[in-house]
Amino acid sequence: MTKTLKLYEEIRGKINAYRYALSVINWDSETEAPEGCFENRARQIGVLSGELYKIQTSRETFLVVNQLYKNKNDLNPLLRHEITVFKRNLTKIRKIPFKEFVEYRKLLAVSARTWEKAKNAADFSIFQPTLEKIVNYKKKFIKRLETTRIAGYDVLLDDFEKGFKAKNYDRFFSELKETLVPFIKTITSRKLDYNDAFTNQTYPVSKQKEFIHYLETVLQYDKTRGLRKESAHPFTSGFAPSDVRYTVNYDESDLTIALFSAIHELGHAIYEQQVNPELENTLIWGGGSMALHESQSRFYENIVGRSREFWKQHFPVLKTIFKKQLKNIKLRDFYRHINLVKPSLIRTEADELTYPIHIMIRYEIEKDLFAGQIEVKDIPSIWNAKVKEYLGLDVPDDSAGVLQDIHWATGMFGYFPTYALGSAYAAQIFRTMNKDFKVLKSLKNKNTEEINLWLKNNLHRHGASMEPKKLFKTVARGNFQPKYYLRYLVRKYSKIYQLEKQ
Amino acid sequence: MTKTLKLYEEIRGKINAYRYALSVINWDSETEAPEGCFENRARQIGVLSGELYKIQTSRETFLVVNQLYKNKNDLNPLLRHEITVFKRNLTKIRKIPFKEFVEYRKLLAVSARTWEKAKNAADFSIFQPTLEKIVNYKKKFIKRLETTRIAGYDVLLDDFEKGFKAKNYDRFFSELKETLVPFIKTITSRKLDYNDAFTNQTYPVSKQKEFIHYLETVLQYDKTRGLRKESAHPFTSGFAPSDVRYTVNYDESDLTIALFSAIHELGHAIYEQQVNPELENTLIWGGGSMALHESQSRFYENIVGRSREFWKQHFPVLKTIFKKQLKNIKLRDFYRHINLVKPSLIRTEADELTYPIHIMIRYEIEKDLFAGQIEVKDIPSIWNAKVKEYLGLDVPDDSAGVLQDIHWATGMFGYFPTYALGSAYAAQIFRTMNKDFKVLKSLKNKNTEEINLWLKNNLHRHGASMEPKKLFKTVARGNFQPKYYLRYLVRKYSKIYQLEKQ
Repeated sequence: MTKTLKLYEEIRGKINAYRYALSVINWDSETEAPEGCFENRARQIGVLSGELYKIQTSRETFLVVNQLYKNKNDLNPLLRHEITVFKRNLTKIRKIPFKEFVEYRKLLAVSARTWEKAKNAADFSIFQPTLEKIVNYKKKFIKRLETTRIAGYDVLLDDFEKGFKAKNYDRFFSELKETLVPFIKTITSRKLDYNDAFTNQTYPVSKQKEFIHYLETVLQYDKTRGLRKESAHPFTSGFAPSDVRYTVNYDESDLTIALFSAIHELGHAIYEQQVNPELENTLIWGGGSMALHESQSRFYENIVGRSREFWKQHFPVLKTIFKKQLKNIKLRDFYRHINLVKPSLIRTEADELTYPIHIMIRYEIEKDLFAGQIEVKDIPSIWNAKVKEYLGLDVPDDSAGVLQDIHWATGMFGYFPTYALGSAYAAQIFRTMNKDFKVLKSLKNKNTEEINLWLKNNLHRHGASMEPKKLFKTVARGNFQPKYYLRYLVRKYSKIYQLEKQ
Repeated sequence: MTKTLKLYEEIRGKINAYRYALSVINWDSETEAPEGCFENRARQIGVLSGELYKIQTSRETFLVVNQLYKNKNDLNPLLRHEITVFKRNLTKIRKIPFKEFVEYRKLLAVSARTWEKAKNAADFSIFQPTLEKIVNYKKKFIKRLETTRIAGYDVLLDDFEKGFKAKNYDRFFSELKETLVPFIKTITSRKLDYNDAFTNQTYPVSKQKEFIHYLETVLQYDKTRGLRKESAHPFTSGFAPSDVRYTVNYDESDLTIALFSAIHELGHAIYEQQVNPELENTLIWGGGSMALHESQSRFYENIVGRSREFWKQHFPVLKTIFKKQLKNIKLRDFYRHINLVKPSLIRTEADELTYPIHIMIRYEIEKDLFAGQIEVKDIPSIWNAKVKEYLGLDVPDDSAGVLQDIHWATGMFGYFPTYALGSAYAAQIFRTMNKDFKVLKSLKNKNTEEINLWLKNNLHRHGASMEPKKLFKTVARGNFQPKYYLRYLVRKYSKIYQLEKQ
């Protein structure tokens, strides 16, 4: 066993090193790499991914992991879980032929650039051939990975949220639809009055950065173990708990875009920074699942970041930085503005209440796409029709429509639904946290210290050392139930829109 | 042969991919990585370097390279040279045990940080234990690499400039000393009159960047295949000819620091950008040798960048950007200032004439260190004594003395002398170039197009496809002779200091 364990540690060390290199290269690609580098870069990424793949699928790894799995009851619980997940993934990975995998990775190495070009040109047709290739690979992978237990789109969903299948999501979204659609109708029929003079102002990027720098301290983001940059689409990249970086995009005409995308990404970043440092060299140092990760970003963005209590502390600071722009603007005006419910085109700019509708659109398209009921070329028109149907809006061009998100360009099908699930998780975790202390009242001490500590102890420190469902149950002290999410939303927005006073 | 060639291409592809990953990680380390990441990062670098080392020293590589070497007369000249160099390096690498190599790389992964801390604290003792470890490794490596043909410090020198031994450098430096020491005495006994009011001004970094951005266009640096950032010590990093990046450091109280370090690094960068793109996936796409690389940075920095002809074009632009600071300053004032001969403490800020003295100090220390005549702990006092002896200056602290350069912290012993050799190469190349066209007159067209093209055709495009000595002979159309360097320096500075008119 000792020898096998030593071999395993070596294998694990290599896997981490390759992932690390690929993460750093990807970070560079998204934040600063010159446009001329990508053809060559794709080749290098192909080789490195190939080496990673070879290590993961080698006969030696297979033997070592199986040997440890056979003796898993002798392992400590952390390693036992790690080996169980490894064996499960190994079974999957070994079903994808090496050459196919490398070709797919090479495609992904340039696909995000093509997507960006198409987005800038607001023209889906530029991106369509690339997306078709990606979808074809995904379909091939599904065929290779299908078992008697799991098939079709569920194979992709399972990759991002173990244990959540289309039938689960169908139920979740239908429950949401039932409550939210009429509720949103009621809400949007009312007018939210406030002084919105500040929405026509210009907010220089340098000043926005100044406030986000302040927010990093408020949210207790450790700047010695991470950094912030700009990119077209904001994201968080954890190379290790000791190096968790994130990006922001700025719009000088709308302060709230950078602001809430920063709080969102900081939620992801704090999660990974707070993982038990002892897990750093294992394969289970990341977040527990995609939905759990998203629950943290949504928790900080919406439950904390769009609360009156939060801005009671920080709006005066914001006013100091934007003296001219926020002159005569009251906390109440700002609070109402950031919680204004208004159907819109861009997911990342959507309000908290209509947000799940954006996810539902993507979910429905993905489901139909992998059921073979629609084709890639049809996506734009279907997209636009759904936006019209659910949100009542006309999509002016592909940039504000089907091309707005990077996910499909990086092969992430099955990811989107975890966003809605994450929001729901966040609300249920908020409910549990409130049993231990008055969460929003704790913000009176300015920063999120008490909240971070609770999340660290109950969720973050665990990393990915448990199955997602079990981990959620641990932090929420109960099974997932959508009703807590709906209850939270209805209560919050009834109050803001003063429905209870009618 | 076809099968062997295919295997070789795979091996070469892997070597390039690992080097690529390590370069990107290093770029990140030097330009933005958060301080908390380095312990973990060292581990990842250790693993990746280990994998690279394994590929380079594997039995398969050994057999493939030997097989190709045996049939080298059947290979095209480019591949023939590549295989010859590979076989030579292989013989070296295989003499260093794997474990020793990985440990050494791990040490280097954190050593630059320690050096930076020591430099900031101006305290050599912080860096001393690390440097002792590095020197011990180097001494161990020398013992392993020594042959009947080459021994001691020459082993290190050979790594950076194939064919140049201590006895060659001894001769080179003694010739320099003989001419330059009396000449510098004559020069510094004269006063160079000019209006230096602009040297007490403040030059905002943002405006310096604006001018450097302009210079990039002037020097024809391709911004779609590279980028510029800041770092404590300026350097150039070519990941591939399609991605050559460089850094600058800024001093708001002295415009010339960023300016000439930028032109210097741009010289390196243009070299690698102009390598024949067909070499990109080989192992010979980089510069021909360290001295050849340095000859290009020195050529652009001093011969072009400190010429009157260059500033006749660009000083008006500089004046537009720094209106207030350069008010009433004439081209003649600026030209005299940037060619002022004045012994100083910092190598990278030294004038063109005293620069080789800085190199001589480092060369002498390295030579004595590896001859066992001095120890690491003695370096600061020896350093300070030599600076006093050769430059007549007192070193105020280690930051302005022994800790000023990053090289030793990254294990680069034997590198410094190539800087002086590079300057001498540059002068001889300048002489040859002038036979084909009036080099400085060609600057009247504002940018360096004609110069770049000549260097591309005669040197850059070749990459590392020839032995350094042969490559130099090709571009200079003759063997290396220090007299051209000395003649260039004496002529230029006699004119500036109006010695000929006496």
